[in-house]
Amino acid sequence: MLKDMLTPQTVAVVGASSKPGKVGHEILKNLIDGGFEGRIIPVNPKADEILGLPCTGNLTQVEGEVNLAVIAVPTAAVQPAVAEALKAGVKSIILITAGFKETGAEGAALEEEIVRMCSRVGVRIMGPNCLGLINTQHKLNASFASLMPDEGNISVISQSGALCTAILDWAAGRHLGLAKLISIGNKADLDEADFLTTLANDDSTKVIVGYLENITNGHEFIKRAESVASKKPVVIMKVGTSKAGEKAASSHTGSLAGADIAYGAAFKRAGVIRAEGFEEMFDIATAFAMQPLPKGDRVAVITNAGGPGIMAADAIENSGLEVATLGEEMSIELAKHLPAAASVGNPIDVLGDADPERYAMAVEAAQDDENVDAIIVILTPQAMTKAAETARAIASKARGDKPVLAVFMGGLDVIPGRDELVTAGLPDYSSPARAVSALKAMYNYAAWLERPARIVTRYPANKRRVERIITRHLRRDRLQIGEVAAKDIMRAYDFNVPNGSLATSANHAVEIAEEVGYPIAMKISSVDVLHKSDSGGVKLNLSSPTQVRDAFDLMMLRIPQRVPGARIDGAYIERMATRGREVIIGMSRDPQFGPMLMFGLGGIFVEVMKDVTFYLAPITADEAMQMLKSTRSYALLEGVRGEAGVDMDAIANGLQRISQLATDFPMIEELDINPFIVGAPGVDPVVADARITISKKEGKRG
Amino acid sequence: MLKDMLTPQTVAVVGASSKPGKVGHEILKNLIDGGFEGRIIPVNPKADEILGLPCTGNLTQVEGEVNLAVIAVPTAAVQPAVAEALKAGVKSIILITAGFKETGAEGAALEEEIVRMCSRVGVRIMGPNCLGLINTQHKLNASFASLMPDEGNISVISQSGALCTAILDWAAGRHLGLAKLISIGNKADLDEADFLTTLANDDSTKVIVGYLENITNGHEFIKRAESVASKKPVVIMKVGTSKAGEKAASSHTGSLAGADIAYGAAFKRAGVIRAEGFEEMFDIATAFAMQPLPKGDRVAVITNAGGPGIMAADAIENSGLEVATLGEEMSIELAKHLPAAASVGNPIDVLGDADPERYAMAVEAAQDDENVDAIIVILTPQAMTKAAETARAIASKARGDKPVLAVFMGGLDVIPGRDELVTAGLPDYSSPARAVSALKAMYNYAAWLERPARIVTRYPANKRRVERIITRHLRRDRLQIGEVAAKDIMRAYDFNVPNGSLATSANHAVEIAEEVGYPIAMKISSVDVLHKSDSGGVKLNLSSPTQVRDAFDLMMLRIPQRVPGARIDGAYIERMATRGREVIIGMSRDPQFGPMLMFGLGGIFVEVMKDVTFYLAPITADEAMQMLKSTRSYALLEGVRGEAGVDMDAIANGLQRISQLATDFPMIEELDINPFIVGAPGVDPVVADARITISKKEGKRG
Repeated sequence: MLKDMLTPQTVAVVGASSKPGKVGHEILKNLIDGGFEGRIIPVNPKADEILGLPCTGNLTQVEGEVNLAVIAVPTAAVQPAVAEALKAGVKSIILITAGFKETGAEGAALEEEIVRMCSRVGVRIMGPNCLGLINTQHKLNASFASLMPDEGNISVISQSGALCTAILDWAAGRHLGLAKLISIGNKADLDEADFLTTLANDDSTKVIVGYLENITNGHEFIKRAESVASKKPVVIMKVGTSKAGEKAASSHTGSLAGADIAYGAAFKRAGVIRAEGFEEMFDIATAFAMQPLPKGDRVAVITNAGGPGIMAADAIENSGLEVATLGEEMSIELAKHLPAAASVGNPIDVLGDADPERYAMAVEAAQDDENVDAIIVILTPQAMTKAAETARAIASKARGDKPVLAVFMGGLDVIPGRDELVTAGLPDYSSPARAVSALKAMYNYAAWLERPARIVTRYPANKRRVERIITRHLRRDRLQIGEVAAKDIMRAYDFNVPNGSLATSANHAVEIAEEVGYPIAMKISSVDVLHKSDSGGVKLNLSSPTQVRDAFDLMMLRIPQRVPGARIDGAYIERMATRGREVIIGMSRDPQFGPMLMFGLGGIFVEVMKDVTFYLAPITADEAMQMLKSTRSYALLEGVRGEAGVDMDAIANGLQRISQLATDFPMIEELDINPFIVGAPGVDPVVADARITISKKEGKRG
Repeated sequence: MLKDMLTPQTVAVVGASSKPGKVGHEILKNLIDGGFEGRIIPVNPKADEILGLPCTGNLTQVEGEVNLAVIAVPTAAVQPAVAEALKAGVKSIILITAGFKETGAEGAALEEEIVRMCSRVGVRIMGPNCLGLINTQHKLNASFASLMPDEGNISVISQSGALCTAILDWAAGRHLGLAKLISIGNKADLDEADFLTTLANDDSTKVIVGYLENITNGHEFIKRAESVASKKPVVIMKVGTSKAGEKAASSHTGSLAGADIAYGAAFKRAGVIRAEGFEEMFDIATAFAMQPLPKGDRVAVITNAGGPGIMAADAIENSGLEVATLGEEMSIELAKHLPAAASVGNPIDVLGDADPERYAMAVEAAQDDENVDAIIVILTPQAMTKAAETARAIASKARGDKPVLAVFMGGLDVIPGRDELVTAGLPDYSSPARAVSALKAMYNYAAWLERPARIVTRYPANKRRVERIITRHLRRDRLQIGEVAAKDIMRAYDFNVPNGSLATSANHAVEIAEEVGYPIAMKISSVDVLHKSDSGGVKLNLSSPTQVRDAFDLMMLRIPQRVPGARIDGAYIERMATRGREVIIGMSRDPQFGPMLMFGLGGIFVEVMKDVTFYLAPITADEAMQMLKSTRSYALLEGVRGEAGVDMDAIANGLQRISQLATDFPMIEELDINPFIVGAPGVDPVVADARITISKKEGKRG
């Protein structure tokens, strides 16, 4: 994929300039200095040659195929330049120039027009407003970043050109090689999903890191990213977590679901590892790039100083990994070779005077010990410490079957050691906590690779009935579906809803009560009454005709007083639900990723503690159960203090049905079943209240 | 304080050796190489001179006063060497040699003996098992770390010698100066509290950082640290947070209070800033060392790249600081000087081609804007970027009245810029998040400095009555004080406890019920029944003589069946408490820091959600209120969904009374009032149940 762009034989630089400092000059210079072995064609009508290369005034005059045109002319000249390139039959374009979508509507229109021109002839375009492209394996530096990194196996996709330069600078400082560096700019045509797929098939790329400010197409991203992540790790830093993007919502689910949560859910689904910052992104990436995945969570720590050993143990425990209990053989081996004062427990303290041999012996013993899944080796620069030799000794014992991560603490005497580590392919961290955090990411990724197949159950449902209700509401411009109709929808998806009907008079209410059986609950039915209880619109446990009649009349008196102008359909009469644990299950449709399901314990757990979990639909039984288990209040579902636990499968089942409903009907924007009353195992949970918001426009599908 | 040790005129090196690599050689060499301007006396009976200095065989033969003896002889020779030094009248001792307390009981005994010898003649001793001492202002390197740091204003206290070397190495790599480096080793005599106080009075020290594995004396530490922190910031990394230290507990409070929580509470009380890691510790310290405290929380971000600007804004928002809304004048100023494409919002994007002048202009505008309290300046290395010149330009505009923090991202081209920043006294961070985290620490410290005076209220209480109850229990070896007696103790401290008495027969129970008034609650009184409800030992809402009689007989039948062998005192009969919000207030005595108070909402909030806060006693009204406000469930106390709020002052008052009780009686180990039933403002809360554990030995006082 994108062969012409990533591994071109002939590259034209449109807007090549002889003036140093000009972007068109820098790109040409970088191509030459980078050692590109194909043909380079500077395009500039005003020059005969630039940097020793003969110039052409017009691309159409070039003989032979041009695989890639890098365009760096002023904004106003871009469209003609693209037209010329297309006419000349170039196979791909990198558009460096800025001044398009990022400047407003006019720029956006121009950008769209350029993409249209290209796609008409099947030419893919990267940018505009980007730094360019580097492919170290092809000796191609088609960017205006002057640093050409060494060859390596980490590829970078970045929406920020400036961050690319920072990454290049940082990699150069660490002597860390890169495979590809791709500055996607405005993503007018090619976006993160395209390059993810391309890099998935690139044998030189072992790990992909990405910096993203937004994602072009949520579903495409998830689909592609999941497929890529199944082949190689994808580590992404997504910025822009601020509150600005939050939308007004009419359900609990909607008000708790933000864009950042949606991105988190999407990454989780796709197996993408989320990094919180620039440094964490590379901490994780270098671990993946250099070391094998751990087969378990038991970590051995080797250190020449007690303090940093404690730091490592703290971090391991806090991360949820295990401080390994060493095997007997290993302990004997250590005791045999270490001075008496050394600790043969874990962390293994090889003492301050440890020489390279002692480190090598300890690493070897940890490699041999089947109770150890990963090894962290810490070095502090003490009087006798030989950092470089020790790095080589550690590397010589790393067999590539367990991850070995180094922590060389300091900034001067340890530098030669760090350089040796990079050369030997051992990742190095400035603190134990950072090494542990990278190891934890590896462990999680390994677990994700072993995940069960995603099989989404389909339940029988009466779709026609739901369709009718939604159509009826849309026709009347009623975008809020109140309790009565929402419960009908729930019935159609086989939820257990108490018997009940809408009563329009006191007598009618009594009639219905007699039919469904006492005790009954009475709830106002009005699209305008949002907080039913607070407005006096809910009466519970009514157990006689008189009570029902009194409650009805009182409600019809009070609601108009408390919510002036409210349109009242009547009062909904239903049999009181049996008691149980109240939970909330809901859905909110993210504009980018489609329906997100929510689970939480009801009432204050949602409203005050915000103890809820989200997952993207469609959801599997296993994922639904994970949603339950990920809440802090999970123990309450299992039963505490002698209370019986509830039927968790029944809740998971409810989440899967909502998932199906939301996937079937893209016009459903938000949905709350609150409370969903759950009983002991085997008891069918009850939808005690429900609320749905629809939209005239179909939202993103699941 | 410790003048002889920190600024000696004459230093003797006992165990000086001519053999490079030997500790006794390295120390001598470091003293000479460090440029120490006083007299240096090598002590070694087998040599005439070492490194050009005449040797003495015995310290007692030295003429003139010896301020400091650094002892680095083999462990077995330490005691005679110390004896000789004391005989020679040395004023202070640094004991480098290891092999004492850290090796076991024998070493510990020897260590204690040496301390006794010294204290008899008033000589203070640092170590043993330490790296030594560095005082850059005195050109004193009395350590075996070969790197002598530049002069600076950060002082380091470290319990790990290895971490000292890592810090020195790291500081050298960053060209960062230090004031003092103090390796406290086993802390046989001088400990962290002593050196904190010393450094508080050291004019060359602006910030103190500390690495601690434990604290010698909790109260002394808090007292001294609070006094020091009031003068200058103290940043401490405390390691060893693992679960190993958790103790068995018989109360909720006890089971939730761990050693790590106690350290957290102690640091909070003392105004000590806690760093989670090595890098964070210095991130924070350099900010304090180089910049003034912010006067508010509004941060301006200046950047030459959009992406890192978003990262900074995300971090600011997540930390609880504010992305400043720029003043109109500043916006006008920026618009006047920046290119049209630049963003004059905040973050202020000065664009990729920003030259030093443009940065200087933006920093100056932010300095002038009274809507800005702190400034973060981000630089990514782009084609036109001049890192060093930009660093100087930024520094030239930093006026020292608002903190300016730099983020130069990269690792090669930005290095000259970073060096300029250090020289100019601007702290520099590798990522926006790290700069924000340091700024947040400064903001919190500034707020702590402004804290109200700590005035602990004393309430009238009947101490004699409590004394009698505790004495009675101790005499009978009953360390668990059950409900009946615990409630008596609560009454003595003026808590509102429902009327009630212990009934020993069914008739007696009815008698009491008639007296206190129906409805009543009946609870088994037995030290052996821990979970009263689960064992059938609680009956509530009994409202007639028959009900009381039946309940009593049933209880006396069931308890012996369910808790075989339980010693039963009878059943406690009390008037049912009125309804209200159930909270838990409690105390657990930490072996290091004394009584820690706990607050949480009752039941599942404590048991499942673990939503509790801790604070060290004695507590002020303000601190008690902070405990309430720091729980996640605080909104429930304020009242949600139309429910009325509860009397928070009454809860705070309860916490203060417990604080007083725990301070008055050091034999109280643990205490739970659970539930403490709180009503509307003005209603006196009720102690519905209480439990106290005492100890034969007095614990740490508050």
